[in-house]
Amino acid sequence: MSDKIEPDLASRLEALLDRQPAASALLQEFYNDAQIFERDIEQVHMKRWLCVGHASQVSDAGDWFRFDVASEPLIIARGADGEVRALLNVCRHRGSLVCAEDAGHSNRLICPYHGWTYDLEGRLRSARNMGDLNLDAHSLARIHCRVVEGLIFVCFADEPPAFDRVEEVLGQSVGRFGWANAKVAHRASYTVAANWKLVTENYQECYHCRPAHPEFSRFHATEKSEESNVDLRKRASDLAVAQGVEIEEIDHWPFGDGAGSEGVAVANDAMYEGSVTGSRDGSPLAPLMGDFKDYCEGFFTYVETGPASFFLAYPDHGLVYLFIPRTAQRTDMEVLWLVNGKSQEGVDYSVTSRSSSETSEV
Amino acid sequence: MSDKIEPDLASRLEALLDRQPAASALLQEFYNDAQIFERDIEQVHMKRWLCVGHASQVSDAGDWFRFDVASEPLIIARGADGEVRALLNVCRHRGSLVCAEDAGHSNRLICPYHGWTYDLEGRLRSARNMGDLNLDAHSLARIHCRVVEGLIFVCFADEPPAFDRVEEVLGQSVGRFGWANAKVAHRASYTVAANWKLVTENYQECYHCRPAHPEFSRFHATEKSEESNVDLRKRASDLAVAQGVEIEEIDHWPFGDGAGSEGVAVANDAMYEGSVTGSRDGSPLAPLMGDFKDYCEGFFTYVETGPASFFLAYPDHGLVYLFIPRTAQRTDMEVLWLVNGKSQEGVDYSVTSRSSSETSEV
Amino acid sequence: MSDKIEPDLASRLEALLDRQPAASALLQEFYNDAQIFERDIEQVHMKRWLCVGHASQVSDAGDWFRFDVASEPLIIARGADGEVRALLNVCRHRGSLVCAEDAGHSNRLICPYHGWTYDLEGRLRSARNMGDLNLDAHSLARIHCRVVEGLIFVCFADEPPAFDRVEEVLGQSVGRFGWANAKVAHRASYTVAANWKLVTENYQECYHCRPAHPEFSRFHATEKSEESNVDLRKRASDLAVAQGVEIEEIDHWPFGDGAGSEGVAVANDAMYEGSVTGSRDGSPLAPLMGDFKDYCEGFFTYVETGPASFFLAYPDHGLVYLFIPRTAQRTDMEVLWLVNGKSQEGVDYSVTSRSSSETSEV
Repeated sequence: MSDKIEPDLASRLEALLDRQPAASALLQEFYNDAQIFERDIEQVHMKRWLCVGHASQVSDAGDWFRFDVASEPLIIARGADGEVRALLNVCRHRGSLVCAEDAGHSNRLICPYHGWTYDLEGRLRSARNMGDLNLDAHSLARIHCRVVEGLIFVCFADEPPAFDRVEEVLGQSVGRFGWANAKVAHRASYTVAANWKLVTENYQECYHCRPAHPEFSRFHATEKSEESNVDLRKRASDLAVAQGVEIEEIDHWPFGDGAGSEGVAVANDAMYEGSVTGSRDGSPLAPLMGDFKDYCEGFFTYVETGPASFFLAYPDHGLVYLFIPRTAQRTDMEVLWLVNGKSQEGVDYSVTSRSSSETSEV
Repeated sequence: MSDKIEPDLASRLEALLDRQPAASALLQEFYNDAQIFERDIEQVHMKRWLCVGHASQVSDAGDWFRFDVASEPLIIARGADGEVRALLNVCRHRGSLVCAEDAGHSNRLICPYHGWTYDLEGRLRSARNMGDLNLDAHSLARIHCRVVEGLIFVCFADEPPAFDRVEEVLGQSVGRFGWANAKVAHRASYTVAANWKLVTENYQECYHCRPAHPEFSRFHATEKSEESNVDLRKRASDLAVAQGVEIEEIDHWPFGDGAGSEGVAVANDAMYEGSVTGSRDGSPLAPLMGDFKDYCEGFFTYVETGPASFFLAYPDHGLVYLFIPRTAQRTDMEVLWLVNGKSQEGVDYSVTSRSSSETSEV
Repeated sequence: MSDKIEPDLASRLEALLDRQPAASALLQEFYNDAQIFERDIEQVHMKRWLCVGHASQVSDAGDWFRFDVASEPLIIARGADGEVRALLNVCRHRGSLVCAEDAGHSNRLICPYHGWTYDLEGRLRSARNMGDLNLDAHSLARIHCRVVEGLIFVCFADEPPAFDRVEEVLGQSVGRFGWANAKVAHRASYTVAANWKLVTENYQECYHCRPAHPEFSRFHATEKSEESNVDLRKRASDLAVAQGVEIEEIDHWPFGDGAGSEGVAVANDAMYEGSVTGSRDGSPLAPLMGDFKDYCEGFFTYVETGPASFFLAYPDHGLVYLFIPRTAQRTDMEVLWLVNGKSQEGVDYSVTSRSSSETSEV
């Protein structure tokens, strides 16, 4: 993949942009065209920070799980040194997938094809019958990886965009909801037969929530434009401050503030009276998280960062939405449901009484 | 879509036409090539008249059904004013399908995505939270639509081909079989893994009928070239005249008479002795239609019009064949079985004893 | 299809070859690109000799079976004259498949579409209602076909590569194992979601055998590079000579010896002590074949020819591996298990106790 644009695509894009009406949805081709899709992946997903999961998925040294971005397969592994790394799941010998299962725990990763064996830091440790092969020169490829407030982010670019502002925002927001010590209570995957831009746009606007997600709209004050919501949103903000979630609302999503830094937006939003969290009936789902002193009616905090990572924080649970483009017309979605890391399934919470956000169809 | 042909395709088509042998089947590329398929849709299906169903499918104001042409989705609806219209099933807000079900009855069409609401004439009646949006400027797009002898025809072109000759032919033929007052007894859909031109050519010739459709060939004199059929066809024509079906046989299919008018062909054809209709055993299936005074041995009338609309009329039932191109290698087929509009299922006819034409595989 | 390469593909190939590192696996595009795949088929599979089965599959005049190469459908038939021929399974009238079943026995092949009827030598014998059509000018197309030691080979090229060297090798090797009088005990088909070159390369190297096929590696001395195998291989060669399998080991695979002749490689290889054949436990599976006087510990002989035909000969059974490219990312595989033609299923052998080679996953 390269930055250089094919001449054909360049002239096609130019013609499309000429035809694109202002303040209107993108033209169909931007969603359907296979070449534009590839360009999206190259220019957006391969250059930006992407959340791929939560550190509790690799809580112990030797834990790993797979996460594919577009068609690039990754292993997210915690090494013997305690570090979380993002390794390409591509054997250095013949390009086979090294890990075929979705997740595991081991002190070696053994390629099933010819048996080349790597450690959890990605170093080649043995290559049968290969004589004096330089093992050090054949580690699994590694991409940028960092853990912030428990969230694992990766970036394929040689020089990733600056992430300081995102770290700061996450600290002020999901950090106060205790996400660094959270755990994944449930993980669900969906496939949507649509372009990643359409799926993301859909997620970004809640104009569709009332007709499409009545169970969500029952308690969430979804439409900022409505006058009746102005007071509600003020109240929500005051409640947030009272609980220690003092946020400087910003909206540098999706493109950052222009100084080469990753895009991020954060805000508190209101829930209607009668609901203290995003459950179907508005009542608590799980023990309080972070420094929360009590349930309150009602607010939640959301963060958006990178091209495809979205977070919703409630006092007793959190939601991580990850959108993974596959083809021009297919996007996979992964949803993680976070709870207090000390809570116990079956005792403190039940995965069958899930969030109203999580179980909504897109 | 535009009339202008891509230079690549133009030169490829030219080369293909050079290689095309005379009086022989088209070269494989004409059936398999995805770009040629798109050109077919643009130049043929989007410019010509296409039958999409029968008026009895929308007998009451508020009735509607969906019909997609290639990948263009339509709603065929009868408005409060009694008119049948063809509306694009594409919400003016974000392009979602307005009607997701196959058919229905209602006085409003509500887009499931954001709730925009249209009436059955296609006018936008409400758009939640959209302030002073000009509703009149956001009606569903409408394409040409007309009902002739009960058959609903649509055309996507701004200026459709002249349809007078087709109307005249339909009046002389299926009009005499009472199709204006018929109803749909049965509707079946098939998917054929072949190009629409191959499927249409196959329908057009009955050389394959004997080996492939023995139950049909038992009573239909399928091969005009055979001498034994000359007298039969003369007898059939006399019988038709006696029943009031006086047809001027023409064959301006598929391209019309050259004066910018839609193509049409019509003829009477013979059935062998012992059969009065196109049933499996030649005996009546349903009450007589139109002005028919009695069953007779034996004739039927066929009409072909536009690129993809074919009709077979028997004294007691009619068949509407619609071919709908989907991709270069896939064509959907819809078959409607018409009977006298006053007849009653289970009393006068049974859908299990269907026509020998309708149940034949292609 | 033509030898002339599209200018686009030519420049793309050139750029790829510039990027291709030496002594390393091919770049991904060589396996994934649809245009390169088509070029492979044109330049390799349509020009070279391909094994399509064994003569015992058409033991009697009138026997036939289908075998598709890429997307070219063939009928392999034994005519009334006893000859085995390869006919294109494409009716000369409208291009329909003449034979729809996988195999059969008949003295005529009747196209199901319009009933055109061919004999087993491919001559058109009748074409209903076609007047004075010149039947002789409408035989099914025929491609080169020859039977060597019971193996049926075909070639689509007008002028096939010279096959003398391959015939000689087959005579020295599988000929001594009695393959000319063998029969097919079992036939299995697999689909592999990978490019034919990857599948073939995989078959060619046995570095993967130990991790991937432990049941095979238990008795086969798979890795030539290991010193411990040198003596074993010498012993195997001596054993082979003692049994009359005196082979001049050559490796002109895949490209032949440069003089326009088909590629071929042949060698004896060793099995570990305790195994006399390639069964799961090393013990005999079926009666001895050819001139073998006794079971012995242990050797087997392999032959590789053309782009996609591979043979393994054991004293009591043989394996024919055929790789059939379908798309850039799909290859079908057919495996024939040969036994002594005089042996009897259920008495002398059982198809449930199959070879360790045959039942291994790729």
